[in-house]
Amino acid sequence: MNKQIKIGIVGYGNLGKGTVAAIEQCPDMKLVAIFTRREPESIQVQDSAVKVLHISQAEEYISEIDVMILCGGSATDLPEQTPYFARLFNTVDSYDTHAKIPEYFQVVDNAAKQSGKTSIISVGWDPGLFSINRLMAEAILPNGENYTFWGKGLSQGHSDAVRRVEGVKAGVQYTVPMEEAIKRVRSGENPALATSEKHQRICYVVAEEGYDKEKIKQAIVTMPNYFADYHTEVHFISEEELRANHSKLPHGGFVIRGGKTGEDHSQVIEFSLKLDSNPEFTASVLVAYARAAYRMNQEGQAGAKTVFEVPPVYVSPKSAEELRKELL
Amino acid sequence: MNKQIKIGIVGYGNLGKGTVAAIEQCPDMKLVAIFTRREPESIQVQDSAVKVLHISQAEEYISEIDVMILCGGSATDLPEQTPYFARLFNTVDSYDTHAKIPEYFQVVDNAAKQSGKTSIISVGWDPGLFSINRLMAEAILPNGENYTFWGKGLSQGHSDAVRRVEGVKAGVQYTVPMEEAIKRVRSGENPALATSEKHQRICYVVAEEGYDKEKIKQAIVTMPNYFADYHTEVHFISEEELRANHSKLPHGGFVIRGGKTGEDHSQVIEFSLKLDSNPEFTASVLVAYARAAYRMNQEGQAGAKTVFEVPPVYVSPKSAEELRKELL
Repeated sequence: MNKQIKIGIVGYGNLGKGTVAAIEQCPDMKLVAIFTRREPESIQVQDSAVKVLHISQAEEYISEIDVMILCGGSATDLPEQTPYFARLFNTVDSYDTHAKIPEYFQVVDNAAKQSGKTSIISVGWDPGLFSINRLMAEAILPNGENYTFWGKGLSQGHSDAVRRVEGVKAGVQYTVPMEEAIKRVRSGENPALATSEKHQRICYVVAEEGYDKEKIKQAIVTMPNYFADYHTEVHFISEEELRANHSKLPHGGFVIRGGKTGEDHSQVIEFSLKLDSNPEFTASVLVAYARAAYRMNQEGQAGAKTVFEVPPVYVSPKSAEELRKELL
Repeated sequence: MNKQIKIGIVGYGNLGKGTVAAIEQCPDMKLVAIFTRREPESIQVQDSAVKVLHISQAEEYISEIDVMILCGGSATDLPEQTPYFARLFNTVDSYDTHAKIPEYFQVVDNAAKQSGKTSIISVGWDPGLFSINRLMAEAILPNGENYTFWGKGLSQGHSDAVRRVEGVKAGVQYTVPMEEAIKRVRSGENPALATSEKHQRICYVVAEEGYDKEKIKQAIVTMPNYFADYHTEVHFISEEELRANHSKLPHGGFVIRGGKTGEDHSQVIEFSLKLDSNPEFTASVLVAYARAAYRMNQEGQAGAKTVFEVPPVYVSPKSAEELRKELL
């Protein structure tokens, strides 16, 4: 067996925890250390061989870590952390602010090229696996239309928006794709769909005592960008019910392309995910691409990369020969 | 715009015709010539700029064709043609005899390395897109199980087997995945499924006059390898009905992986195709990968490749910058 790939993790929220669990399933990898901005003593991990260290100590581990998996958020953590870590380590991250990806790519690319390291950015399922499927489906069926549906899933951004409404004590928001729309897309019809026809938004809200529920509801359903353009349901529930039924982080979705070939033949390509745990799944994708980052760097492919530049063979622990024999 | 990629086609059956249609949808490509073993005069193509030539003339076109798309069959054509053409051109083919892929790869790799050309073998949907999805899903969810279902679709090999039975004048066979099995797999249950629980086989048969239908039926359903292990239905129909309802070549299928992450969370990845025309879709995949073969060769990546070695970016006509902006 080849030597194990030595992994470091930056950030120990849901995604960091999922990454620890995902590495445990990979015999070709070894988790060396978790780096955190918190007091390292405040974090307990099961495997006593794994060090928990302050993020400022990462530089001391340059020779002991092959790939650093960055588990921070896209809003403020990654734009700052990734360029820094790309100067020291091969990295993988899940940067998901779609609109800012081109500029983020440039900054990380500059850093990684200077250090000769490989940084795979925007890894996960969207951006990530969904992006690959959008690309492949479009390339294969140029005469067609891509559709992406998300959910049923808990949306972090929209849940935050709900919780910022005055009188809301706690709450969550689920994005739910419309069955009728999916059915039409799957038929190969390639319908024109308004935003409101693709997804609905369902909120479960705990109201502060003494607040007018109707007023809270109106504030939510009329909120621009987040809810105004959608069919939005608001359900008021108790704190107990919220804890009991809405503490998991399921998600998923569909990328569907309908296209025409030859004499008007309809062809439909679909990729879908049904996830009990969004952060654990995203972490599993990050870990698989950490393998790719290591290998691409071994071959001298330095700089920023996206999932588009990674050949599938680098993502699997198996050799090209094994893959041709077993999975082709 | 970059220069167009100049394409040649070898073989003008269903797949070759689908390839002509697929190239028409790609502004970055130009079909130069079709090479055939038949009398070239016997073949008519719409676009008068496309030459139809005897296969023996291909060598004269080395400087005029960037990629040769090989549209012959896997049984006898490709094992002979691909090594020959790989000495002259970059090639793409749909070799699909799974068990013999490793040895085929070696022969083509030797030929292509000698010439410095790039040959992408076993391109299409299975092997091809399904293989990529099996690989990715296994790499991301190591603790899980892959399932591949085919159909509903017309199976060429099994239709041929039906037609070889004494007393059968004409016939077709559809492979149909079992709904119940797909449902269980989609639930993340990862069931153990016997061959007979995954697919059923439905035959539409035209009997020769004077033959005993019951005898024909028995000969089909008991045929080893092809039908004996399956639930097989045999329906006798008229020649007119066969022509009217069973002359299309639909196909499709599903690759599903259910896996567990972290604390027993179930995660399900699914890729599926619903194809009105199997050969036209396969041809569309071949054409997209012809683009990849050309680009990989431009970058000096000579030898045999499979879809596993091809980064998605090479398959799309768009630049890496456009892809990051539009599809990531």
